[in-house]
Amino acid sequence: MSTDLHKKALVIDGLMINNWGPEIFQSMRSGGLTAVNATCSVWEDFTSTMKAVADWKQWFHKYSEDILQVYSTDDILKAKEQSKVGIILGWQNTSGFGDYLPAVQLFYDLGLRIVQLTYNTANSVGSGCYEATDGGLTDFGHEIVSEMNRVGMLIDLSHVGAKTTADTLKTSSLPPAYT
Amino acid sequence: MSTDLHKKALVIDGLMINNWGPEIFQSMRSGGLTAVNATCSVWEDFTSTMKAVADWKQWFHKYSEDILQVYSTDDILKAKEQSKVGIILGWQNTSGFGDYLPAVQLFYDLGLRIVQLTYNTANSVGSGCYEATDGGLTDFGHEIVSEMNRVGMLIDLSHVGAKTTADTLKTSSLPPAYT
Repeated sequence: MSTDLHKKALVIDGLMINNWGPEIFQSMRSGGLTAVNATCSVWEDFTSTMKAVADWKQWFHKYSEDILQVYSTDDILKAKEQSKVGIILGWQNTSGFGDYLPAVQLFYDLGLRIVQLTYNTANSVGSGCYEATDGGLTDFGHEIVSEMNRVGMLIDLSHVGAKTTADTLKTSSLPPAYT
Repeated sequence: MSTDLHKKALVIDGLMINNWGPEIFQSMRSGGLTAVNATCSVWEDFTSTMKAVADWKQWFHKYSEDILQVYSTDDILKAKEQSKVGIILGWQNTSGFGDYLPAVQLFYDLGLRIVQLTYNTANSVGSGCYEATDGGLTDFGHEIVSEMNRVGMLIDLSHVGAKTTADTLKTSSLPPAYT
């Protein structure tokens, strides 16, 4: 019975960080995973993150039997139908934007859909959950939240400081998530 | 009569390099241009070129009354119907790939459709038309041609050396162009 349920259900892993490659892709597929928020940036800068996304684009082509890229919810249903794993590209930090606001739209066009504002420590957007003090969302942080809202990118508040979180909840026009 | 013809025709500018901005966009539109191969990289490296593409993405949003991005020939017809200027992103060099083959697919996904192999001088792909000697398409150059063919990106042979051009014509599975 539980196997039947698992087969029918849309099973989405809220966040996975991994040594990505064909073995992992096959393993996720045989495990019946429908989609996953796949981390492709944690501490990396703009250029390194872009190259990580470039590598994903190669994998989508090379391992198209196992994975497909998710741009919209339709692609998650498509993954289910085709028994493939839908990859939702995500970050656990905002360092990949390189403090360049137009980078939000750029990465959105490449399929980035979920971004955590900070990873434990402070950055140009706000404070992480390990900081002794949290000054809240910075001016640039307000711009990032607004731009992520505009393009339709999910804000992830995991690893984010308490005041930065509170400021984001007040500011964001779309509901953030904890993954 | 000639005005009528101009109004009916699809008018495509094969290559334009410009100090891009709202005045140019309005001017192209009022001049009845249907589409243009707009240069967004000549000597720039991977990161600078990415940021130039990010700026274009902002302009497509901000100046959507005047311009729209061309991903396919359908978008050129759409530009004509809506009396807007279709922007086909193009480069006059391969420096923007940063000697990283997966960057071809990455930029393709962002709308890059036309790339010149060299700009007058030699690079990691081949020799330019101003070089004293032309060793032809390099090993990496063969990979770039093959990858551009695979994703469906137009190879531009303007400013390219004679032997590099001949090698490309022999190698490429799709017809290159001189813009």
